[in-house]
Amino acid sequence: MKPLKEMTKEELLELKATLSAEYKEAQGKGLNLNMSRGKPGVSQLELSLPMLDVINSGSDMKTVLGNDTRNYGDLDGIGECRKLMAEMMSVQKDNVVVCGNSSLNIMYDTVSRSMTHGVNGSTPWCKLDKIKFLCPVPGYDRHFAITQHFGFEMINIPLGTDGPDMDMVEQYVNNDPAVKGIWCVPKYSNPTGISYSDEVVRRFANLKPAAEDFRIFWDNAYCIHHLYEDKHDEILNILDECEKAGNPDMVYMFASTSKISFPGSGVSAIATSLKNIDFIKKQMTIQTIGHDKINQLRHVRFFKDRAGLEAHMKKHAELLRPKFEAVLDVFRRELDGLEIGTWIEPRGGYFISFNAMEGCAKAIVAKCKDAGVVMTGAGATYPYGKDPKDSNIRIAPSFPTPDEMKAAAELFVLCVKLVSIDKILENK
Amino acid sequence: MKPLKEMTKEELLELKATLSAEYKEAQGKGLNLNMSRGKPGVSQLELSLPMLDVINSGSDMKTVLGNDTRNYGDLDGIGECRKLMAEMMSVQKDNVVVCGNSSLNIMYDTVSRSMTHGVNGSTPWCKLDKIKFLCPVPGYDRHFAITQHFGFEMINIPLGTDGPDMDMVEQYVNNDPAVKGIWCVPKYSNPTGISYSDEVVRRFANLKPAAEDFRIFWDNAYCIHHLYEDKHDEILNILDECEKAGNPDMVYMFASTSKISFPGSGVSAIATSLKNIDFIKKQMTIQTIGHDKINQLRHVRFFKDRAGLEAHMKKHAELLRPKFEAVLDVFRRELDGLEIGTWIEPRGGYFISFNAMEGCAKAIVAKCKDAGVVMTGAGATYPYGKDPKDSNIRIAPSFPTPDEMKAAAELFVLCVKLVSIDKILENK
Repeated sequence: MKPLKEMTKEELLELKATLSAEYKEAQGKGLNLNMSRGKPGVSQLELSLPMLDVINSGSDMKTVLGNDTRNYGDLDGIGECRKLMAEMMSVQKDNVVVCGNSSLNIMYDTVSRSMTHGVNGSTPWCKLDKIKFLCPVPGYDRHFAITQHFGFEMINIPLGTDGPDMDMVEQYVNNDPAVKGIWCVPKYSNPTGISYSDEVVRRFANLKPAAEDFRIFWDNAYCIHHLYEDKHDEILNILDECEKAGNPDMVYMFASTSKISFPGSGVSAIATSLKNIDFIKKQMTIQTIGHDKINQLRHVRFFKDRAGLEAHMKKHAELLRPKFEAVLDVFRRELDGLEIGTWIEPRGGYFISFNAMEGCAKAIVAKCKDAGVVMTGAGATYPYGKDPKDSNIRIAPSFPTPDEMKAAAELFVLCVKLVSIDKILENK
Repeated sequence: MKPLKEMTKEELLELKATLSAEYKEAQGKGLNLNMSRGKPGVSQLELSLPMLDVINSGSDMKTVLGNDTRNYGDLDGIGECRKLMAEMMSVQKDNVVVCGNSSLNIMYDTVSRSMTHGVNGSTPWCKLDKIKFLCPVPGYDRHFAITQHFGFEMINIPLGTDGPDMDMVEQYVNNDPAVKGIWCVPKYSNPTGISYSDEVVRRFANLKPAAEDFRIFWDNAYCIHHLYEDKHDEILNILDECEKAGNPDMVYMFASTSKISFPGSGVSAIATSLKNIDFIKKQMTIQTIGHDKINQLRHVRFFKDRAGLEAHMKKHAELLRPKFEAVLDVFRRELDGLEIGTWIEPRGGYFISFNAMEGCAKAIVAKCKDAGVVMTGAGATYPYGKDPKDSNIRIAPSFPTPDEMKAAAELFVLCVKLVSIDKILENK
């Protein structure tokens, strides 16, 4: 089809009439689909059920070092789980602290600790007049929610296909001592699915922050979450690169098994320099006696090592891929050539990011909802929930079945067309 | 025996010579015992092993309301676990939020949230020049560590056999707006084992705090941790009493199953007013997507209800009682009448608190260590680790076997006698 903008008013009105009838029909179907949350599907959860059998009343529950996982101890996690998470994150075991069930919670605690106790001896952030955080956009709403909760000023940094706009990042970080952090999802980014190029990672590692307590919050949430066997993104190891660049303490890396084993019942970890770990543990030892070591042992006994994790993630990919492709197929078939939206075809992660014509995202999401398809709220991928172009929509294909995803995507493109036609007609 | 103070110098020197020989002999035995930590013993951990079988790969893992515990959701805990914890804490389910594996972590987070965000809209504590916390002493070192970590001034409040000195508590709380909290272990107190009388609880509930953001941190850690079937302490419900007194929001109650199921792999909860819960959840929703619901379900399926918890705690009591009695038997046999130490015989909890003659605690603990028996560091039961009288020693009988506890107690009383004799001789 030709670009909608090139159609005459009459052609557009005619198309609108046809599509409106289709939309009415769709509304009549009583759809009830949810594409809003990056929630694993039921079939994915079933992959990890055998994990619930590996620890039972007859199990030896001692660690390799002989510590009893059933009792207090091992503040930074049992050794074998630190090793497993290190392999997953491609870092050294000594740099890893295993925590509770949620990497989001570690990120929150990391910001909260910086507020009350500073960073490795710096002034507590709560004593400063102004804290700024850089936010590559579109990005993850829960990251932005943390920095909003603590009252930081958030600055949008455009995210390209190879990472954030590094000229802007360097400009801010290297000159403004109020800039204390940046949120990054470097691999299979939430929501655009892109991965940072080697050059971007190296430019991160070579930042010369104006603030000594500037830190990169490197949320490696999708480190082994590939969709294809033959097409993997790989990113450089930011810990190594920071070390090489003389900035060994500049990065905190986060990850969890929430989308590998069970969301809410996985294990999470932070990886960072030994100096940072020393400081973190000074606080952790006040906050807790230790995290759930039986669950750590359960994960180790089930996954064993990096190869075990990878084999497991292949099974996830097999379940997720058809859902992603169902959406992408509909997009290509229905939208190619119309010039009313763009999207990236991700190789991993949990999302497809759609950019509608400016000023259309909210209306599209609302129109979908009116026909029974719930999307992530438009704007959610931007700080303060404000997408300045009202363009980005995050699609989460993981929870519904492939057939449901197809139906949802059909409805979605219908809404994209209808809203875009109205937008174009406004200017005719 | 007669009081040591009434002995002549010669008698004391003779006794010292005998006891020193015994001590030398004990040193030769190569003891390696630890009475320092409130850690459940291995036989206690075994009581909960069947819990590891109630959830397996074949289990229905939906909540009563049909939510899938394997996936994201239920920020404040699954309903049936909130009910279980409510029954355990003798409060209403609506007042309960179930969290992760550690009530200490909830307490830390509660203080940390008050630092960064205040209490229900009050000025964040980090913006105030001075924060004071009242600390009934002797008390729990990890409570004091939290308030020390945040730089609060801690004020010692003597703890009697029926609770803290309420005249002092009222004096401070009702007059000084810098006093923002008090640490309480109201039942089977750590370390003295006493429980607060009804009058004390009512006086707490009827405080008229000078600070609107004053809160009672009511750590009900040992709420169902009785040692005897026929002698239970019971305390008034502080939430009810606060409500009656027109102070519904003044108290946070904490508890966990750490010493019921598995330390580190239990579930914890906070119980407080609905208004407080609203405020807490505003922060929790930023901090996490939710806690480990599979483990919550595991606890519910295993314990079922209050009666199930109580039946389980009877088994714990049967294992713990002989250890406590081994210590108390030695104390009575060896120390009665000597007037060199006092202790309380607890009806529950995890500790026996010993008060030596003033200025003797550190020396006793050191002497024990030199013969292979590790005690909690003298002073640990006081803020800043400073016992002004150098008198209190916390004994944790739970981890060793009864025979080991007997051996450790024999060594302990020997050290008490030797150090006391030296102290008395100083003044002869």
